[in-house]
Amino acid sequence: MKVMKVGLLGLGVVGEGTWKLLRSNMGELERRTGVRIEVTQVAVRDLAKARAKIGDAVPLTQDGLDVVRSPDVDVVVELMGGLNPAYDWVMEAIAQGKHVVTANKALLAERGNEIFQAAREKGVIVAFEAAVAGGIPVVKALREGLTANHIQWVAGIINGTTNFILSEMRTRGLTFKQALAEAQELGYAEADPTFDVEGIDAAHKLTLLASLAFGIPVPFGKAHAEGISDLTRKDVANAERLGYRIKLLGITRRTEKGIELRVHPTLIPAESLLANVSGAMNAVLVNGDAVGSTLYYGAGAGQMPTASAVVADLVDVARMASALPDHQVPHLGFQAAAMANTPILSMSDVYSAYYLRLRVKDRPGVLAELAGILAEEGISIGSMVQEPHGDEEADIIFLLHRALEGNVDRALERIQSLGFVKSKVIRLRMETEL
Amino acid sequence: MKVMKVGLLGLGVVGEGTWKLLRSNMGELERRTGVRIEVTQVAVRDLAKARAKIGDAVPLTQDGLDVVRSPDVDVVVELMGGLNPAYDWVMEAIAQGKHVVTANKALLAERGNEIFQAAREKGVIVAFEAAVAGGIPVVKALREGLTANHIQWVAGIINGTTNFILSEMRTRGLTFKQALAEAQELGYAEADPTFDVEGIDAAHKLTLLASLAFGIPVPFGKAHAEGISDLTRKDVANAERLGYRIKLLGITRRTEKGIELRVHPTLIPAESLLANVSGAMNAVLVNGDAVGSTLYYGAGAGQMPTASAVVADLVDVARMASALPDHQVPHLGFQAAAMANTPILSMSDVYSAYYLRLRVKDRPGVLAELAGILAEEGISIGSMVQEPHGDEEADIIFLLHRALEGNVDRALERIQSLGFVKSKVIRLRMETEL
Repeated sequence: MKVMKVGLLGLGVVGEGTWKLLRSNMGELERRTGVRIEVTQVAVRDLAKARAKIGDAVPLTQDGLDVVRSPDVDVVVELMGGLNPAYDWVMEAIAQGKHVVTANKALLAERGNEIFQAAREKGVIVAFEAAVAGGIPVVKALREGLTANHIQWVAGIINGTTNFILSEMRTRGLTFKQALAEAQELGYAEADPTFDVEGIDAAHKLTLLASLAFGIPVPFGKAHAEGISDLTRKDVANAERLGYRIKLLGITRRTEKGIELRVHPTLIPAESLLANVSGAMNAVLVNGDAVGSTLYYGAGAGQMPTASAVVADLVDVARMASALPDHQVPHLGFQAAAMANTPILSMSDVYSAYYLRLRVKDRPGVLAELAGILAEEGISIGSMVQEPHGDEEADIIFLLHRALEGNVDRALERIQSLGFVKSKVIRLRMETEL
Repeated sequence: MKVMKVGLLGLGVVGEGTWKLLRSNMGELERRTGVRIEVTQVAVRDLAKARAKIGDAVPLTQDGLDVVRSPDVDVVVELMGGLNPAYDWVMEAIAQGKHVVTANKALLAERGNEIFQAAREKGVIVAFEAAVAGGIPVVKALREGLTANHIQWVAGIINGTTNFILSEMRTRGLTFKQALAEAQELGYAEADPTFDVEGIDAAHKLTLLASLAFGIPVPFGKAHAEGISDLTRKDVANAERLGYRIKLLGITRRTEKGIELRVHPTLIPAESLLANVSGAMNAVLVNGDAVGSTLYYGAGAGQMPTASAVVADLVDVARMASALPDHQVPHLGFQAAAMANTPILSMSDVYSAYYLRLRVKDRPGVLAELAGILAEEGISIGSMVQEPHGDEEADIIFLLHRALEGNVDRALERIQSLGFVKSKVIRLRMETEL
C-alpha cells in the first residue's frame, strides 16, 4: 500500500487527537483511500510530555524546521496555533515543496494571502477545514459542494464558547459573568477569555468564510467584531419575550456596494434553526443563488471533531496531489487570477434591523419625540413596548425595521442627548430572515 | 480557457435548471474552475418543446446514443429519471469512456453496483450528488468531509413531499388526505403520489446513503419502507402533546450484528433540529465516531437546488479528471476492493423505542394484563397515558423504551388477540436521541 508521510507540528489537544484518530481509524482510512497515512516526525515544545503521550514510535524534536525539512515527510500538519513560529515553519514547509494542513485560523486570517501565494508558486496544497467550525465540513461545502452558486451571504454561530455562555444566560437566567465562570469551570472558556467573548476568534473564522464565499483575498482586519461581555440578562429575557433569541453571529453578505463583514450579538427568530443551536455547538447557514439556504451543523471545537477535519484534509491531499495543479481545488475556492477586489463595507454602510432599549422619564410627549427623531432619520419602527419602572420612569423597547446603520447611529446620538433619556441606549442588531 | 463539453440527457425541470445555471453563473464558474463548461449536445423526447426552451444554440436529438457517442461530448449528464432508457444510455456513455453525472436515485439504487463497476473498469467518474437530498452537498460530506470517521448512523428527512404533508397535518390539523391534496395543488406531490408517500423514494436515497456511510455495495431492495398514508390526525396530535413530532425518517445504523436500513414515520423530540425541519425542506444527520453528530440542511428538491448539485458534480469532474484514477474519490467513498459484505438486518432484529395506541374496554385488570405481556417479552414501559372514550372504553398510549422489534411484534400479536382490545393496535417507532 502507498504511504503518505506526515510531519506533525504540535501535540496539544488537537495534535494528540489527530495522532489518535490516524491510529484508531487506520483501517477505515485505508478502505477509503487505499493509502496508509503515517506520522513520521513530530515537533513539540515539551519532549517529555510528548513521549508520555505517544511513546517511542516516532522521532521527536523541538525544532519544527527539522520536521518540515525532513526527507521523511510528504505533508506537514501544523497544529500549534499562534503566529510564531507557526508562520515561519509553514512557509519553510511550502518552500520545501511540502503540502500543508493547518487548523490555525489566526495564522490564515492574518497571513493567509502570503501563505496561499507562496503555496501557489510552489504548486502545493494548503488545506484548512479544521480552521473554521471544527468538525463541520463547511470549507468543503463552500469550495466544492456549492461551487455552482453565487454565494449571497453566510451567517454562522462559529464560536462555541460564546454560544455556550449565551445558552446558559437564556435557559438559566445567569449573568454574563456567572455563565462565563461556569464555562471556564467546564473547560469551554480559557482563563483569559477575551479572544472568544469579544468576537475576535469568530472574526478570524468569518474572514476566511468571506474569502471562500466571494472569491476575495482574505480581508484581514476588516471585520467588525463586537462581543457579548456587555450583554445583560434583561436584554436576553426581552429578546425571548419578543419571540427572538440572541446569538453571536458572524455575518458576511454580498451587496451592490460591497461586502458586509461583521460579528456581533444578534436577535434572530426563536423558531429558526440557528436559534436552536445550543451549548457549544456551531452552525453555518449559507445562502446561494441557485440552492437557496443550506445549513451545516456540528461540533465547532474539541479534540476529536477538530481532528476529524484535519484527517479529512490529509485524505484530500492524498487524493488531489496527483491532479494537475490547475485542476486542484484552489485554496480559497477561486482561481488566484480571478480574485475580486470587492470592497468591505464599513458598519455605517450596513443594513440591519435593530432592537433598542432605553429608560426615559415617564411624561407626555416622550414617545412622540423619540418616534419623530427615528422618522427624520428615515428609520421605520416595527414594534414598541413600554414598561413602567418605578414611579417616574419607564423602559422603552423599539424593534426597528431594516435601516442603514449610519442613520441609526445618528438617531441614537440625538436620542442619547435628550434630557428625558435616563440610561445609555442599548442597541442590538436583529436579523429577521435567517 | 479550457472547455469541458457536456452532453445533456433530458431537459425536464432539472435539465432545464442545469442549462440555465450553467449560463447564468458562467462567470462565477470560470472564476472558480478556470474551465468553461459548455453544453454541446442535448437529447430530449419532445424536440419542439426543447427548442422553445433553449433555442437553436445546441444540436438536439431524440436518441441519447447520439449524445453519448458524440466526439463533441466529454461528460454525460443524465437527468431523465426512470430506469429505461437511462440505464442503457449511461452504460454506453461509460463504455465510450465518458464521465457521467446523474440525479437518478432510482437508477443508482437499483443498478448502481453494475454502473459503478463498469465505470471503474473504464476509469471514469460517476457523480451523483443531486440524487440524494437535492441541493444539500451530503454525498460530498459523507465521501470526503467526514472521511476520517467510522460513520455510526445516518438519519434523515430525505423526501420533501412527505415532510410537507406531515408539517401541514401537524400545524393545521389536516388529515393525510387533505394535506396530500394540498401538496398536489402546490406541485409538491405528483398525481400518483405512491412513490413519495409510501417511502419508496426515501428508501432509494437511504440505500445510497448506507453504501456511502458504511462502504457496502448498494443494498438495493433491502430497505424496509413504510409510508405515511395510514397516519392519523390523532397520532400526530398525541405525539405533539407528548413532546414529540412525527417525521418520515430514513435511518441506517451500523450495529454489531449488521446494518439497520429503514424508512418509516418516527416520533422524535420536538426540540431536536430534525423535528424543526419543516415544509418541503430536507435534512440529514450523520454521526461519526470522531466528529459526533453533524447536520446538513437545505432544499431537497426543486429545479435550481437540484441543478446546483448537478453543476457542482460537473466542476468536480473537471477537477478530478486529471488525478490518477486510484487517487480520484471512489464512487461510493471506499475503494472497490475494500467494500464490506456486512449484512442488512431484518426489521425483527432492529432496536427502537415505540409509541403504541390502542382502544380497550375500560374495566379493572386491563392495564395489568397489557403490562404483563410487555414485561414477559422483555419490553420496558417508559410512560403511559389513559383517556376515557365514551362510557365503557378508553384509549391507552404507551411509550416504550428501546426494545428488539421482534419482541415487540410478538407482544403486539398477543395484545391484539385479547378480548378487551377494541381497535387495531397502532405502533409507531420513536427515536429519542436524534
